[in-house]
Amino acid sequence: MGLKYAVIGTGALGGYYGGVLAKNEKDVHFLFHSDYKYVKENGLRVDSVNGDFTLSKVNAYNNIKSMPQCDIILVCLKTTNNTLLKELLPPIVHEKSVVVLVQNGLGMEADLQKEFPDLAIAGAMAFICSNKIGEGHIAHLDQGSLNVGSYSVCDTNILHQVCEDFNKSGVVANLVDLESARWKKLVWNIPYNGMTVVLNTTTDRLMKNPASRQLIYELMQEVILAANKVGEGRFVISEDFADKMMETTDRMTPYSPSMKLDYDNLRPLEIEYIYSKVLEAASDVNCKMYFTSTLEKQLRFIEEGYLNER
Amino acid sequence: MGLKYAVIGTGALGGYYGGVLAKNEKDVHFLFHSDYKYVKENGLRVDSVNGDFTLSKVNAYNNIKSMPQCDIILVCLKTTNNTLLKELLPPIVHEKSVVVLVQNGLGMEADLQKEFPDLAIAGAMAFICSNKIGEGHIAHLDQGSLNVGSYSVCDTNILHQVCEDFNKSGVVANLVDLESARWKKLVWNIPYNGMTVVLNTTTDRLMKNPASRQLIYELMQEVILAANKVGEGRFVISEDFADKMMETTDRMTPYSPSMKLDYDNLRPLEIEYIYSKVLEAASDVNCKMYFTSTLEKQLRFIEEGYLNER
Repeated sequence: MGLKYAVIGTGALGGYYGGVLAKNEKDVHFLFHSDYKYVKENGLRVDSVNGDFTLSKVNAYNNIKSMPQCDIILVCLKTTNNTLLKELLPPIVHEKSVVVLVQNGLGMEADLQKEFPDLAIAGAMAFICSNKIGEGHIAHLDQGSLNVGSYSVCDTNILHQVCEDFNKSGVVANLVDLESARWKKLVWNIPYNGMTVVLNTTTDRLMKNPASRQLIYELMQEVILAANKVGEGRFVISEDFADKMMETTDRMTPYSPSMKLDYDNLRPLEIEYIYSKVLEAASDVNCKMYFTSTLEKQLRFIEEGYLNER
Repeated sequence: MGLKYAVIGTGALGGYYGGVLAKNEKDVHFLFHSDYKYVKENGLRVDSVNGDFTLSKVNAYNNIKSMPQCDIILVCLKTTNNTLLKELLPPIVHEKSVVVLVQNGLGMEADLQKEFPDLAIAGAMAFICSNKIGEGHIAHLDQGSLNVGSYSVCDTNILHQVCEDFNKSGVVANLVDLESARWKKLVWNIPYNGMTVVLNTTTDRLMKNPASRQLIYELMQEVILAANKVGEGRFVISEDFADKMMETTDRMTPYSPSMKLDYDNLRPLEIEYIYSKVLEAASDVNCKMYFTSTLEKQLRFIEEGYLNER
């Protein structure tokens, strides 16, 4: 018997990852919000660099109470909506369900565990460039791999099975150590998300200007330093990981990180889990993150400005 | 015999300070750039909270070579134009002239001294809210005092005389220690100039949002720490000076600092003397200014963006 999947938040991430699983005949159940009616009538369309496809028949829902209990819950919400999980999860989890938070940041799993002490939780980092470009319409532009790590999953065999399901569907998925993987992703996310929003620009421009390029590099080093202080004894991120991230970004096409897209669309920013929780974790081990803290405060100012004007 | 004054750069500052001296029958000679023809025909108008006045007959020049040698040269240029001083000063200084840099930042006097090793140099800090609102038309909105300090003036009696000239003209002017006064002014200038530009806002909004308010306060404390490290043995700025500056700013009407006005008008920003020289001075005493350095780099990015688009 294969695993039964639920996708909570069928946007750029959930639409793609759930879509490829469903295309490869996995049993996937999608929760939609505004796109429900459209998808019910027209299906889910994925334009992917690996080949376009449309799922004409989708297990689509607009009400969590209509959904079946599932083995794997892929949470692809923005972390700004994680407060909804308190209501969304109980109807669809059974005793052996694993909830996988496909999100960026730090501490989402711990917060969820506080809410559901007995829940088996995992996290996943998506390395993908994809956008929702219309109703029930996802554009997958680049990359696409997924790193999955256990937070409180006792028997990680089920996560191996998830990775296998993805691999068989054409998505490179690996089981990794969650804590170090979350920090590694932050080495990229903290500088580029904040700086593209504060300076209203794209990654390529930040890399081209010598001053912003240096600040990006210093931010990366600050995150690595904090990571290693927090992870002492458990993991080490080498300093040259920053150089690697710089090179990777130099090779990327001009890119707007997810927070920049949220800003452009006047949506709430994921400041809490990408910045504030990181600052808290660092502060707990007496590590000061000056550059990161500056960005966090600037982002809070910017977000308040437009959220209050709505 | 009274002092003969030259005003180099007759804008919001030079127009006001030179204007009040001229109004009180001091011998003042003004170098104009674009406003020359207008002022020659229509005079110089100052709308001041202390009383409006128009100088119908102004010693106006548009060519430094037509100007007489003067005792006191009030340099009211933006520091971004200080490279011009190499050409502007020689025709108007005599052996006993004192050049007073009425500017914000750190290190302008040292740079000028390198260019003119025998020149008597002083600095002045203007505590004023004034704008050039039209050709030959200055609006003086608030405050107006001037702190003057010697950099390399052997006999400071002449600076006392300058202060007296100002005081008699209705401008509160005091002789102060230049180095500590420059740093004290930076405690305000570094946070507010940079933050209003980077976040495209005004002082009151920065003070209202809790995150930006905290960052402003941390920037102030960072500047004070650096000042005291640099000034060790010579001066101390007490920590509660930051609280005083916060209170002062809370009482101010919504305000765009000079760098914000430069940004709004797509002019070069005074990053070099307000930020980079300060970072250099701190670095020389092994003091890291993380917050200030972040702002400096963000400002460099922003400035490059619009200066290159012109």
